[in-house]
Amino acid sequence: MSEVLEELRRVLPPEALVTDPDRMESYRYDRAMFCPAGMPIAVVLARETAHVQAAVKVAAAAGVPVVPQGARSGLSGAANALEGCIVISLEKMDKILAIEPIDRYVVTQPGVFNAVLSRAVAEQGLFYPPDPSSWEFCSIGGNLSTNSGGLCCVKYGVTTDYVLGLEVVLADGRILRTGRKTVKGVAGYDLTKLLVGSEGTLGIITEATLALRPETARPRTMAALFSSGVAAGEAIVEIIRSGVSLSLLEIMDRTTIAAVNSYKRMDLPTEAAAMLIAQSDAGGEAGAADVAAVAKLCRDNGAIECIEADDPAEGELLLEARRAALVALDQLGTTMIDDVCVPRSRLADFIGAVEALATELDITVGVLGHAGDGNMHPTVVFDPTDPGQADRAQQAFDRIMEVGLELGGTITGEHGVGVLKRAWLAEEIGPVAVDVHRAIKAALDPQNLLNPGKVVES
Amino acid sequence: MSEVLEELRRVLPPEALVTDPDRMESYRYDRAMFCPAGMPIAVVLARETAHVQAAVKVAAAAGVPVVPQGARSGLSGAANALEGCIVISLEKMDKILAIEPIDRYVVTQPGVFNAVLSRAVAEQGLFYPPDPSSWEFCSIGGNLSTNSGGLCCVKYGVTTDYVLGLEVVLADGRILRTGRKTVKGVAGYDLTKLLVGSEGTLGIITEATLALRPETARPRTMAALFSSGVAAGEAIVEIIRSGVSLSLLEIMDRTTIAAVNSYKRMDLPTEAAAMLIAQSDAGGEAGAADVAAVAKLCRDNGAIECIEADDPAEGELLLEARRAALVALDQLGTTMIDDVCVPRSRLADFIGAVEALATELDITVGVLGHAGDGNMHPTVVFDPTDPGQADRAQQAFDRIMEVGLELGGTITGEHGVGVLKRAWLAEEIGPVAVDVHRAIKAALDPQNLLNPGKVVES
Repeated sequence: MSEVLEELRRVLPPEALVTDPDRMESYRYDRAMFCPAGMPIAVVLARETAHVQAAVKVAAAAGVPVVPQGARSGLSGAANALEGCIVISLEKMDKILAIEPIDRYVVTQPGVFNAVLSRAVAEQGLFYPPDPSSWEFCSIGGNLSTNSGGLCCVKYGVTTDYVLGLEVVLADGRILRTGRKTVKGVAGYDLTKLLVGSEGTLGIITEATLALRPETARPRTMAALFSSGVAAGEAIVEIIRSGVSLSLLEIMDRTTIAAVNSYKRMDLPTEAAAMLIAQSDAGGEAGAADVAAVAKLCRDNGAIECIEADDPAEGELLLEARRAALVALDQLGTTMIDDVCVPRSRLADFIGAVEALATELDITVGVLGHAGDGNMHPTVVFDPTDPGQADRAQQAFDRIMEVGLELGGTITGEHGVGVLKRAWLAEEIGPVAVDVHRAIKAALDPQNLLNPGKVVES
Repeated sequence: MSEVLEELRRVLPPEALVTDPDRMESYRYDRAMFCPAGMPIAVVLARETAHVQAAVKVAAAAGVPVVPQGARSGLSGAANALEGCIVISLEKMDKILAIEPIDRYVVTQPGVFNAVLSRAVAEQGLFYPPDPSSWEFCSIGGNLSTNSGGLCCVKYGVTTDYVLGLEVVLADGRILRTGRKTVKGVAGYDLTKLLVGSEGTLGIITEATLALRPETARPRTMAALFSSGVAAGEAIVEIIRSGVSLSLLEIMDRTTIAAVNSYKRMDLPTEAAAMLIAQSDAGGEAGAADVAAVAKLCRDNGAIECIEADDPAEGELLLEARRAALVALDQLGTTMIDDVCVPRSRLADFIGAVEALATELDITVGVLGHAGDGNMHPTVVFDPTDPGQADRAQQAFDRIMEVGLELGGTITGEHGVGVLKRAWLAEEIGPVAVDVHRAIKAALDPQNLLNPGKVVES
């Protein structure tokens, strides 16, 4: 090990290398619950691609595993350190390199925070849609590695839909450039989209070219309250069926509403079992018409109250309830947030099944999520010092995924597999797909050194 | 070879196997010019996935190459037979299996024509956007294998943006299911998007789940005429800069306008050096405002005439000029259609450079294309019986790609690599990316039997 450290010292400037155990401690974990992490032998704070390349070459020569890391805001343990690994943190590679308004793309380093990039392009009248709830403290590199979603996916899609090209350090230290700077392109295999969402197991992203859209109009917002989660689920189906184009369609259940009420003193009606929040950014009369149509559909499908925001500030207030939901649930105990996506026609069934299993297991589950996509985040709340409860919480977490799969859904809509859902991945995709994953992993990383054991078991 | 045929006869019903050389002749070529093709030993007309699987297993056991084939409407030779291969045609797997209006997807076999699928979903108020010009005679399987684009990509993206999941027969005959039926999903590597555009070299697509959108409003159409191609290119830049959302933005140059005039007797003004055609499907006042804004931008940027269609029929007439363009150019001689995509900011430069090289090489080049994407189809017209001209045509075709790369573009925006552009692929993506292509190909097809020699040289 000391030889590896010596080599790292030789090829990297001193400020790019951390070996002090106290400092390294904070690079061990992302935000996932119940995921193990080891102690790295070194943390590389790369300032440029050459640092990543140099560290990977040292690791490859010595056969030491490498764990790439962004802002450690992930929820599946994909960025957790492995015992004896080299962590390569991209957090210092935080420069936006170019914004091109006509060709509508931005070239960026991976360490830039999503919110920083979004604001920078907005200043030029442009829009980078992917907006995970963590946008203020997650990095673009992490978004790319997990193919992040967000609130406006329902209209604008997810991260992969915006990635034109990547610069990637491969497992042997060579630099791969994928993709293009043009709107379209089919020259060869789509390596870009293979790398997006691969959670650092196939290469380390050191630069990205991301497509942008023109800025949108200010959104119109409405909220609707329902006396049952299932009724809300049915209203969602009718909203989808109507074809109205919403830029946001979120749901919160009774538990979440109560948590937000007590955390934010929001005076949401406590008799409500579910709340939908919808936005349209169509602008002008079209946006107003969209929101009015959704309000009517909600009323026709059993909403007990509809609130149409008169101005953007009031709309932002309604949305604040949704944004505060996770933090509010955190006040009730330790939380485990799940991330199941089901076909939208099965949303009511899913909500009903989660309610039933929470009752059966006598555990608190707050249901919230991106209703327009069918991507739900049932959040299990428990007291970790009560072993029975912790056990039932873990059971609930797993049963939620089971229900998702039974309804034709996926175990992860946007948070990724990491180590948290590795066993479940095989369940979802089956043995042939697992073999293909392993074959591709072996082709790109024959020594199995890039984030080994993440996504697929080694 | 006779043993292979015997095996195929044993595992396939008689109607699924063609060995008559006269019948096989028509399965040798797609629509690419100057691409060699061999004679297959058999053509399998698969009726179901099990036929594909059985044929692939026979081929794998005997080490015989397999060429998957859709409607043979491709323009790069990707579907051309190889000497001694087994062609597996998917044209008889032409059933739409399910249309789900709420979950907004269609499950289809690969042999369904694009237009048939588009019309079937339209009947249920749904919209499948990818619309290659060949939509009446190209199959969904071919669209998937080449990641086809089309006219409305400028607003709605290309094929890969609509593929949720695939059923694929692998090189060893196993069946892989990729993806999901939900809007979002990040469970494992994005094998779906790796397979889309891989031109049958990584697996044979036997079923696809495709995302749909709600139907759009009837489009509003306008056309603008310019006295130079460069002026039209500059107008395009201003249209993009304005942020107006168009569902179509096409361009035709002087040569193409003249060809259409003489073929269709359309009375387009012969003094025009370029024509833009734009559509907005925003509907109602918004659509009318979009088209008026584009007309103003065209006038401000030197348009000599703007025609705003009063009704859909008149709009369709304007679009007919664009749709007839390739057939019209075919009347002038043999054509080779190129497919270069450049950053939109470089369109005027690209158009100017193509005009210059046509003059320099004394050859006719009609420029037309998807201006809104920067995806241009300069079409070289020549007399193949004149060896000097044929030679200069080939030179022009290559020089067009060279110019595209110099301007930061790609050698293929939507037609694919096949055999036609294989040498150019290496030029564009470089040696590391070629190595990664080969590694992935070897991982999924270790015997190199699936469409060998297409995309990347073996």
